[in-house]
Amino acid sequence: MEQRISLAHGEGGELTHQLIQKVFVQSFGHSKQTQLDSAIFTLPGQTIAVTTDSFVIKPLFFPGGDIGKLSIAGTVNDLAVSGAMPWAITAGFIIEEGFPLQDLKKIAQSMAAEAEKAGVNIIAGDTKVVEKGSADGLFINTTGIGLLQERRKLKPEKNKEGDAVIISGTVGDHGISILSARQELGLMTEVESDCASLTPMIQELMNFVDGIRIMRDPTRGGLATALVELCEDFNFTIEVEEASVPIRNDVKGACDILGFDPLYLANEGKVVVIVDSSHEQIVLDIMKEHSYGKNARVIGHVTSSDDLIGKLLLKTPIGTTRRLQRLSGMLLPRIC
Amino acid sequence: MEQRISLAHGEGGELTHQLIQKVFVQSFGHSKQTQLDSAIFTLPGQTIAVTTDSFVIKPLFFPGGDIGKLSIAGTVNDLAVSGAMPWAITAGFIIEEGFPLQDLKKIAQSMAAEAEKAGVNIIAGDTKVVEKGSADGLFINTTGIGLLQERRKLKPEKNKEGDAVIISGTVGDHGISILSARQELGLMTEVESDCASLTPMIQELMNFVDGIRIMRDPTRGGLATALVELCEDFNFTIEVEEASVPIRNDVKGACDILGFDPLYLANEGKVVVIVDSSHEQIVLDIMKEHSYGKNARVIGHVTSSDDLIGKLLLKTPIGTTRRLQRLSGMLLPRIC
Repeated sequence: MEQRISLAHGEGGELTHQLIQKVFVQSFGHSKQTQLDSAIFTLPGQTIAVTTDSFVIKPLFFPGGDIGKLSIAGTVNDLAVSGAMPWAITAGFIIEEGFPLQDLKKIAQSMAAEAEKAGVNIIAGDTKVVEKGSADGLFINTTGIGLLQERRKLKPEKNKEGDAVIISGTVGDHGISILSARQELGLMTEVESDCASLTPMIQELMNFVDGIRIMRDPTRGGLATALVELCEDFNFTIEVEEASVPIRNDVKGACDILGFDPLYLANEGKVVVIVDSSHEQIVLDIMKEHSYGKNARVIGHVTSSDDLIGKLLLKTPIGTTRRLQRLSGMLLPRIC
Repeated sequence: MEQRISLAHGEGGELTHQLIQKVFVQSFGHSKQTQLDSAIFTLPGQTIAVTTDSFVIKPLFFPGGDIGKLSIAGTVNDLAVSGAMPWAITAGFIIEEGFPLQDLKKIAQSMAAEAEKAGVNIIAGDTKVVEKGSADGLFINTTGIGLLQERRKLKPEKNKEGDAVIISGTVGDHGISILSARQELGLMTEVESDCASLTPMIQELMNFVDGIRIMRDPTRGGLATALVELCEDFNFTIEVEEASVPIRNDVKGACDILGFDPLYLANEGKVVVIVDSSHEQIVLDIMKEHSYGKNARVIGHVTSSDDLIGKLLLKTPIGTTRRLQRLSGMLLPRIC
């Protein structure tokens, strides 16, 4: 492992994984006990889920959202995919000296609006300011608390061969949106980020579908990294049909030009659901009722070929199969 | 209000107060409902307290601690002074590209050690990395969750004339420690920060003393700002005897040279307790059993002069009385 922190350590891929394993897990003494996106524990009489996320996205404002909306949606979605009802959120601001107050107000209002949409209260906050040049505009940390109800628990251990892997919509929108907003790469398309709180849709799924094994929001590191982590955490193999993965034409075009693989681009308003195949249709039906789920699709299945346990396989349109790894190295720093 | 964020907005004084009132309270729709350092709410069967804090201290390592120890102690103390038993903590890291891994490990270990001392688990984490020059080394956000037990509730509304105001030890140690560690001001003394988790002492106070009205940890903005906020929040007047406030000689010396008022310097291991005067001796006795409480002292009393409701008064050694305001403008940026 490198002895200095590189930007790639923040990309949500292999190096982030190593950093967490080698530094934080070692120091804090966790291991793999927390396999969901939130820490979950039981109070006498009530089980709650807790998750924390810092947002360092650049630029702060982008088509489809801003850092404020993102900081609520991102944390709320982490709770929701853990099977918890988002309930309360805290917000910590690190602000660079000279930051325009107008922008801060806009961002705070955008947080408030998104929190209302997601049904959470912002219950505590903190503000720090650092000298000009010691931060880049604004960073926000949000920590979310959600309520987990017994009947809503996900059942990852019940996964079996043939389980359907469903994505709620097109992949890579957020990544390309941020890239185009940065105007660094001469992209002409303006792609809107998918940034959104998925609580209403996910709550409906939890209420009406019994056979959900597990959910994950494919943010930093993209769909491929999220699925690799699921395969490793729960020791099953997934085969994804490349041709089935929904990708917008403008996102595909931008990826072709820039040499990015959309499977590794960040999403901020998508969920992957692994579900008993007998329930795949009701999952699709519920997703399609929501604007952010209208392009939902089955993209693959859990397989059980013994020597491939814990691996993510991609079946290409020409019929070959290759193994995908988690994102390695640097793709897009400060995507969230 | 200024239209751009200045460093003074992060000092915990008047401008921070304005920023929070004008930007966040307005956006998030809170008012004065939360007068403790933590947001507190009831789950069916269990009441919990939640607090969040970002740490941007410079330098990261200082006599008596580092940003890791501080990020645990600071948040744990916010919970403890709210009358809650610290229970769990989340940690969000924003790391500058190029940051030495060795330092990060040291800091993470120091967090783990302090968390063990304070009896909390670090239950969730997040890591982001930004490009060189976009942050200053390392920022940490911690969010704490504590359990509030019915019999331990503080009773600020019972305050009355004659209540004692007690500080657990000398003031200004942390502020001067950071200043000397920065070596910017040619200070020759090396003062140790008081940075410490006060849980054991505060839990003992909560268990054995009935008449505690309220507690506060005088961090950013110092003792004076903490007391001004108490006076305003709970609508009583406090008279502090300047000569009674314990100050180390080296801290006093440094303040004299540099022109700082120790009443406004940050502390990170002190608590102010307002208690029924009939219980002041037991509070002092309990505090003095702990290394960080051995210089505990009564520094003033609640008075009830009608036209001075909600004000902090300082009685000087020469017998005059003047009103103190919360910290205004900039004193020491990035003190925590």
